[in-house]
Amino acid sequence: QRTFLGHWCFNTNVRFSLPAVCVVWQTAMIILFGVFIRYDEESDPHWLEHKKLNNISSDIENDFYFRYPSFQDVHVMIFVGFGFLMTFLKRYSFGGVGFNFLIAAFGLQWALLMQGWFHSLDYTDGKIKIGIENLINADFCVAGCLIAYGALLGKVSPVQLMVLTLFGITLFAVEEYIILNLIHARDAGGSMVIHTFGAYYGLSISWMLYRPNLDQSSRLQGSVYHSDVFATIGTLFLWMFWPSFNSAITDHGDGQHRAVINTYLALASTVLTTVAMSSLFQKHGKLDMVHVQNSTLAGGVAVGTAAEFMLMPYGSLIVGFCCGVISTLGYIYISPFLEKYMKVQDTCGVHNLHAMPGVIGGIVGAITAAAASESVYGHEGLVKTFDFEGAFEKMEPTTQGGHQAGGLCVALIFGIGGGMIVGAILRLPIWGDPADDNCFDDETYWEVPEDEESIPPVLQYNNHIADTNFSMEPYPRTRS
Amino acid sequence: QRTFLGHWCFNTNVRFSLPAVCVVWQTAMIILFGVFIRYDEESDPHWLEHKKLNNISSDIENDFYFRYPSFQDVHVMIFVGFGFLMTFLKRYSFGGVGFNFLIAAFGLQWALLMQGWFHSLDYTDGKIKIGIENLINADFCVAGCLIAYGALLGKVSPVQLMVLTLFGITLFAVEEYIILNLIHARDAGGSMVIHTFGAYYGLSISWMLYRPNLDQSSRLQGSVYHSDVFATIGTLFLWMFWPSFNSAITDHGDGQHRAVINTYLALASTVLTTVAMSSLFQKHGKLDMVHVQNSTLAGGVAVGTAAEFMLMPYGSLIVGFCCGVISTLGYIYISPFLEKYMKVQDTCGVHNLHAMPGVIGGIVGAITAAAASESVYGHEGLVKTFDFEGAFEKMEPTTQGGHQAGGLCVALIFGIGGGMIVGAILRLPIWGDPADDNCFDDETYWEVPEDEESIPPVLQYNNHIADTNFSMEPYPRTRS
Amino acid sequence: QRTFLGHWCFNTNVRFSLPAVCVVWQTAMIILFGVFIRYDEESDPHWLEHKKLNNISSDIENDFYFRYPSFQDVHVMIFVGFGFLMTFLKRYSFGGVGFNFLIAAFGLQWALLMQGWFHSLDYTDGKIKIGIENLINADFCVAGCLIAYGALLGKVSPVQLMVLTLFGITLFAVEEYIILNLIHARDAGGSMVIHTFGAYYGLSISWMLYRPNLDQSSRLQGSVYHSDVFATIGTLFLWMFWPSFNSAITDHGDGQHRAVINTYLALASTVLTTVAMSSLFQKHGKLDMVHVQNSTLAGGVAVGTAAEFMLMPYGSLIVGFCCGVISTLGYIYISPFLEKYMKVQDTCGVHNLHAMPGVIGGIVGAITAAAASESVYGHEGLVKTFDFEGAFEKMEPTTQGGHQAGGLCVALIFGIGGGMIVGAILRLPIWGDPADDNCFDDETYWEVPEDEESIPPVLQYNNHIADTNFSMEPYPRTRS
Repeated sequence: QRTFLGHWCFNTNVRFSLPAVCVVWQTAMIILFGVFIRYDEESDPHWLEHKKLNNISSDIENDFYFRYPSFQDVHVMIFVGFGFLMTFLKRYSFGGVGFNFLIAAFGLQWALLMQGWFHSLDYTDGKIKIGIENLINADFCVAGCLIAYGALLGKVSPVQLMVLTLFGITLFAVEEYIILNLIHARDAGGSMVIHTFGAYYGLSISWMLYRPNLDQSSRLQGSVYHSDVFATIGTLFLWMFWPSFNSAITDHGDGQHRAVINTYLALASTVLTTVAMSSLFQKHGKLDMVHVQNSTLAGGVAVGTAAEFMLMPYGSLIVGFCCGVISTLGYIYISPFLEKYMKVQDTCGVHNLHAMPGVIGGIVGAITAAAASESVYGHEGLVKTFDFEGAFEKMEPTTQGGHQAGGLCVALIFGIGGGMIVGAILRLPIWGDPADDNCFDDETYWEVPEDEESIPPVLQYNNHIADTNFSMEPYPRTRS
Repeated sequence: QRTFLGHWCFNTNVRFSLPAVCVVWQTAMIILFGVFIRYDEESDPHWLEHKKLNNISSDIENDFYFRYPSFQDVHVMIFVGFGFLMTFLKRYSFGGVGFNFLIAAFGLQWALLMQGWFHSLDYTDGKIKIGIENLINADFCVAGCLIAYGALLGKVSPVQLMVLTLFGITLFAVEEYIILNLIHARDAGGSMVIHTFGAYYGLSISWMLYRPNLDQSSRLQGSVYHSDVFATIGTLFLWMFWPSFNSAITDHGDGQHRAVINTYLALASTVLTTVAMSSLFQKHGKLDMVHVQNSTLAGGVAVGTAAEFMLMPYGSLIVGFCCGVISTLGYIYISPFLEKYMKVQDTCGVHNLHAMPGVIGGIVGAITAAAASESVYGHEGLVKTFDFEGAFEKMEPTTQGGHQAGGLCVALIFGIGGGMIVGAILRLPIWGDPADDNCFDDETYWEVPEDEESIPPVLQYNNHIADTNFSMEPYPRTRS
Repeated sequence: QRTFLGHWCFNTNVRFSLPAVCVVWQTAMIILFGVFIRYDEESDPHWLEHKKLNNISSDIENDFYFRYPSFQDVHVMIFVGFGFLMTFLKRYSFGGVGFNFLIAAFGLQWALLMQGWFHSLDYTDGKIKIGIENLINADFCVAGCLIAYGALLGKVSPVQLMVLTLFGITLFAVEEYIILNLIHARDAGGSMVIHTFGAYYGLSISWMLYRPNLDQSSRLQGSVYHSDVFATIGTLFLWMFWPSFNSAITDHGDGQHRAVINTYLALASTVLTTVAMSSLFQKHGKLDMVHVQNSTLAGGVAVGTAAEFMLMPYGSLIVGFCCGVISTLGYIYISPFLEKYMKVQDTCGVHNLHAMPGVIGGIVGAITAAAASESVYGHEGLVKTFDFEGAFEKMEPTTQGGHQAGGLCVALIFGIGGGMIVGAILRLPIWGDPADDNCFDDETYWEVPEDEESIPPVLQYNNHIADTNFSMEPYPRTRS
């Protein structure tokens, strides 16, 4: 009956709104890029002259070679990592990976503009000059919106997601500018700027869009065996490439090197405590794939801010240890509590994977920064790591710690406040979102192939006949 | 009945032809490599002396460090990207990813030889000297044949694919030499050399092998839910790593940097217009996975030639915008037309993903080259980007534009002409190709595991019993 | 009935043992890391001073930029490559990829300590100084244990795997120290140190844990269509990134460059002979996915030792050619023989993929080393490639060949001997391993989602009803 009902859900028909949003916004991007965006000096053919002028001896000194491998890893995290992590639902894999693809592709363009105006504007000619670091930052910016999508997975329309992304990127760029430039907090891996903001942004929207009758879709709100394996692809690519995420825009040399080591260790530690908690709090000690897919990543979130600091290898292990415990217990106890008493429906559990570990990451960053000293970092190392230059030349590590804490507060305020405003907008009855009994179902927005797998056996035989007849038509969903 | 029939299709038995082709050709490769192929000066232990002689200050100047990350990304595109993109059919995933693996592994060896004779032959000792750039070019060369396979997916035997690859690589190397060296066209990402050639090569072969009764296999010519998710793995790895593809062999420094930016932007733009068209032209505005899996990649194809030029960020977005529209409409209108009236059966729709965008890419490249100027590139930048050196020292950008257009014509001629000749060879009744009612079916060439998933329920129970009996035998398709 | 039985198998309940092992061992890691592990000079903020003191002109000279791309590829091999290769069983995909994840995450921490004590201990302050090369080596060390897991897949509990890993890493570090430092054998890609040791370690344990009645689980000891496609993801990521594996810790410059070329070629050659043998020895010439998934990788194992030597391109092809043949015939003839007569049950066939090719790799390495000469390598090249420095300054290539052979023997002795001891420990009836009729079944250690796919049709309808009732409960395996 799903197919039959699907045909009558006219309210979810996005045939005009979705193409309109995509085409108009993409056209706007082209115009804005034409007016504002140019290549920077390292991606422009004048690089040859730039090299001579600046006494750069070799092309290998181009920032491209310092950052491109990390960029590609981050890129994989955004599209395959986040995308496949959201394929776990039995009948929302298309929506999980497909809408993730759509909003990331839009978001990164808008992010290049928004972040460009704040960070890469060349005041001599009014143009934004982009290079590889801008691409990384655009991917980072998109990550915030994809985290928010995780809280809303299966309950919103693609048009709503585009709106969420437009506002999310805008808020992100402002928040990031305040935290990094005005407050002068450091946040290499974005525990605050990306994870805390993104998660609370999504959770606030979910709270605004609370569905009291969501249990009407509960038949679809779980996984099947193979969808869980697909989701593990996402988990592993996030887990493996998280060291690249946290080191992608840190300082050349020891900064990138150290951020990788810290993240690598924190993540390893998280896996063990996640498995421990998952087994301990389950009847018969059986592991739950939900925990293994998600909580194993919490350590990467929580060392985001401090990854470039002297967190020390054992410090990274401790952070990972705690986050594995907290995140797994979050899935078991806090998520049901949030849904029942706080009216926050969090499909992917981003509260456990991004919100709590993000806040922990902000705190760890503040403590590590406050504890920094010249004896540990060396004078030059301290200046470089914390960027104690220009207006901040005389800044002390303890003050820096306070600024870090201030940054965390800004991220929380922007996430919660921004999410409530955007959530109010998304409640308007014009966005084509699914009915309560239609959530978590790809049939709503996708042409789903006829598939014998998930049909009850009483229908299966008739369906088999129908399928045979259907295939007499010339182009039954083939590519030719 | 599929199993029963399968046992009687003796014509598709490749038990002697396939091993013979593999072993004999591999032996030939060993002999030819023994005679011709050596390490180049950067992969030979004499590198230490070479460094001193050429005043190279550091090992990091070895071309390996400029190109290895891009090489690995390209490698992933060839094997996982193309391979998984072809797993979308409900019962041809083994053939899609498996035969892709086989012909790529053969093709890259033959490509090292063919391209080596044209481009890397050391005339002092008659040897081909290979390094990392040769490996990248071999992978590129293979891509042409894999694109051709896309048009033929499910309709040919592995032996035919080996023959297709042998001739395809040969034609590619000649065509590439004419376009790049004789005509002096530039084609960093291979819009012409790889995509236009490969697609028309495959389409011409498909036209020669036209099957009027292919609808007898139409029950298998579609996807199931999970096969569509598998194909998305291929899509995403192609999409994410396309910037590496288009920049892998461009100039060190700004050349690689700029090619990445252009490709990144073109692909992002394509996603939005693909989604827009897919929704707009479908009843109820539902998205079609075929479009999302394929048309989203068209922008990467179409900036292949111009990626290293000053296409400008907004120019990349415009190219991507157009290709998303054209490619998606191609799937909806042109592919059925080609099949019905032109007798071209194109399983993966390579006409929409590679042929049309490839031609567009050639044209965009010609226009961008013709519009180049010293004011935009700088004198040195212009010379380096277009390689205006040696015999071409006095070449003007406008002339270069004409040469680019000439290159496109050569690619078309080689693709169509070569495809017709190879197609004629593949029509010989000796290659073990499947019958019309046996296409798109892994049973033909693979031991397929017993699987309850896809069997009608009336048969399922009996099959379950059969399976139980079967498992009494000692080694029922286990690894031990 | 599986579910029913599952609930009564109290012996496999790891609810206390698994969390205890994870938490206690992770805590021990934190303490040991606190006492022993620090950043090395390239990942410490004092890098800035180190640069000046050592006249290093640029941050790009930091070892991070030489090795990070290779490290990430190796990391993918460990977690996605090995993990997904073990998802082939129809109902053990969670265990395959999940336990692989667990033991790798534990193993790499223990490996940093064990290898650190032997190789990276700074005697001035008694600390282990780690950088990117240590992370690569830790991943390598883990690979040995994952190979061993391949032989035991589906037959052991996660607690047993943790024990196997603890001892495996310890044995590995000792064996590696003896082979590389005391015997002065070279083994860049670990044919001996990793593959020979790991495979025989696992096979010996499997022999100690022989299950005469394993055929009671034979219904689960095979693949289904989609699990075979999942396993192919593992295969391809191993295959593509093997050049990075064999080159990750070789010498900067030509060493890494040459190792990549040799591995790339050996692997390509292996694919063709694997396909040839698979087709030739099967009725009707049909290919077997088991061979394509596994034997295609044998060439990468077998050039592991010699990849950095002057094996020559044709030499690599020859090694690959032979290993494809031997490994495939191993799956067809030797594995059944080993199980029936030698009482070695080898789930993934690691004897064919790692043991035999590893031994071949050791022999190829010995021959290639013995045949080395100054005329081929140049004087400096020979010294650098074979590390003929310090105590080994006067060593001759022929002697080096003998030392290589000695290294192979040590790997065999440690693998077989260590495996028998650890196997004896794992036979204690305290580890929660599954019963003979409960092997290869994720139900034993995982919460498996209700899934209509694999249930016989007679049960399916009732189950469907049950499922509907079940979903009335508040949190039926959802993430919220």
